[in-house]
Amino acid sequence: MESNRPPVVILNEPQLAENIGSVARVMANFGLSELRLVRPRDGWPQDRAWASASGADWPLDNAKVYDRLEAAVADLKLVYATTARPRGTQMTVLTPREAAERLHTAVDRGQRVGMLFGGERAGLETDDIALCHAIVTIPVDEKFRSLNLAQAVALNAYEWRLGVADKPREAFAQNVDEPAEMEVVVGLYEQLEAELDEAGFFHPPEKKPSMVRNLRISLGRSRLTDQEVRTWRGVVTALSKGRGRVLEKLARQKAEKAEKGEG
Amino acid sequence: MESNRPPVVILNEPQLAENIGSVARVMANFGLSELRLVRPRDGWPQDRAWASASGADWPLDNAKVYDRLEAAVADLKLVYATTARPRGTQMTVLTPREAAERLHTAVDRGQRVGMLFGGERAGLETDDIALCHAIVTIPVDEKFRSLNLAQAVALNAYEWRLGVADKPREAFAQNVDEPAEMEVVVGLYEQLEAELDEAGFFHPPEKKPSMVRNLRISLGRSRLTDQEVRTWRGVVTALSKGRGRVLEKLARQKAEKAEKGEG
Repeated sequence: MESNRPPVVILNEPQLAENIGSVARVMANFGLSELRLVRPRDGWPQDRAWASASGADWPLDNAKVYDRLEAAVADLKLVYATTARPRGTQMTVLTPREAAERLHTAVDRGQRVGMLFGGERAGLETDDIALCHAIVTIPVDEKFRSLNLAQAVALNAYEWRLGVADKPREAFAQNVDEPAEMEVVVGLYEQLEAELDEAGFFHPPEKKPSMVRNLRISLGRSRLTDQEVRTWRGVVTALSKGRGRVLEKLARQKAEKAEKGEG
Repeated sequence: MESNRPPVVILNEPQLAENIGSVARVMANFGLSELRLVRPRDGWPQDRAWASASGADWPLDNAKVYDRLEAAVADLKLVYATTARPRGTQMTVLTPREAAERLHTAVDRGQRVGMLFGGERAGLETDDIALCHAIVTIPVDEKFRSLNLAQAVALNAYEWRLGVADKPREAFAQNVDEPAEMEVVVGLYEQLEAELDEAGFFHPPEKKPSMVRNLRISLGRSRLTDQEVRTWRGVVTALSKGRGRVLEKLARQKAEKAEKGEG
């Protein structure tokens, strides 16, 4: 039904409405139309966005607003984060060209995919990047790295567009089933993290955020299928429920003993 | 003397100073610095250009202004005109990528080269194009062709830049740390499987081999680093050691109770 739809563009905490409008314009230039905004600073809608879109109104008219990035990526199966500086994360770093190739491969398989961009000033936090599958870095000159938001979207959209033009793409040497939607994967993350919390794994507590990120990034690289997510949820349950079962068993033994004592 | 200098950017009759500033910014992003302006509508210099360059002042500080396009291209040996609509001229039409390759070839031979862009509204006249050696057309969507001036410069500058980075581009593709040796990874697998065994996860027992394989395959795709293997071993220990701790605690309680019973 909804197969072969081009990438969604997700702007995380965009600041200036003018820039959102410029993004809509370059999206239209290169055949993208689905825009998602996570916590736009000045609220939404903003007239100035339409004013700077030069007539590319439809991405703005249909833009969806989200409170949390998790919700904005929930239905996607592959999300790439464009960021200037690869942080010390264990994530694959792609050029826009490589990213476009991989996005095309995923879309050819009917997967919904997205491109994530950070706000003008702050860029993306590592927690945001941890929800993505790779980092896209635009090869800017070291001497002047500050790339305008719409330019960053334009270069990625342009590379996507070039890929549309070259039709015959080899089905990748990969026969992994479709990855689960991010919502499903995040469910696993949250279950694991809750159990680890209970087990006292996250200490010292101030290290918890980076520990969580590292777990998500390393598991995220697997791009688990639905079945695999179920299996891993079972693993976490089995390992941690063990505690409950042992408790039950000992409670039972205690009860039996008490009964015996009484008998 | 002046060999191997990157392309000059020539703006023919640019209108808005803000756009000239945005052009300077993307030039700086991709390592270009030489800007030439032919009959800028509002004169030159214009403060608003510097304001919108976000600190990329040097192309503006050194910009040269010309009355005629002929003068602006006089010292160049190869000039490409970027224009959305190829007119009915018998000129080669290149993609930005093809253009960048040819510009590199010329620059490698010590030739001075340029990229010409028309004004925001009027674009380039056929007379202007006739001074150039080929037309560069950006593959925009037929439905929305209106590309911002700075975007057009950015895409060409980006393609030029990719050509610069061409040789060491390998290093760019991936900078994830090395994956751990298989011995280390298998150590994690075996720890996990032993704990799952103890937790009664593998049932019915005849399914154990395929369950083990599926876990290994899904985790194996992550190509964990040494550090990540250590983290995941910690996760398995934390989740399963809970059992041990509960056991210990109950054993202690039992012992205390027994003591009390004795006392």
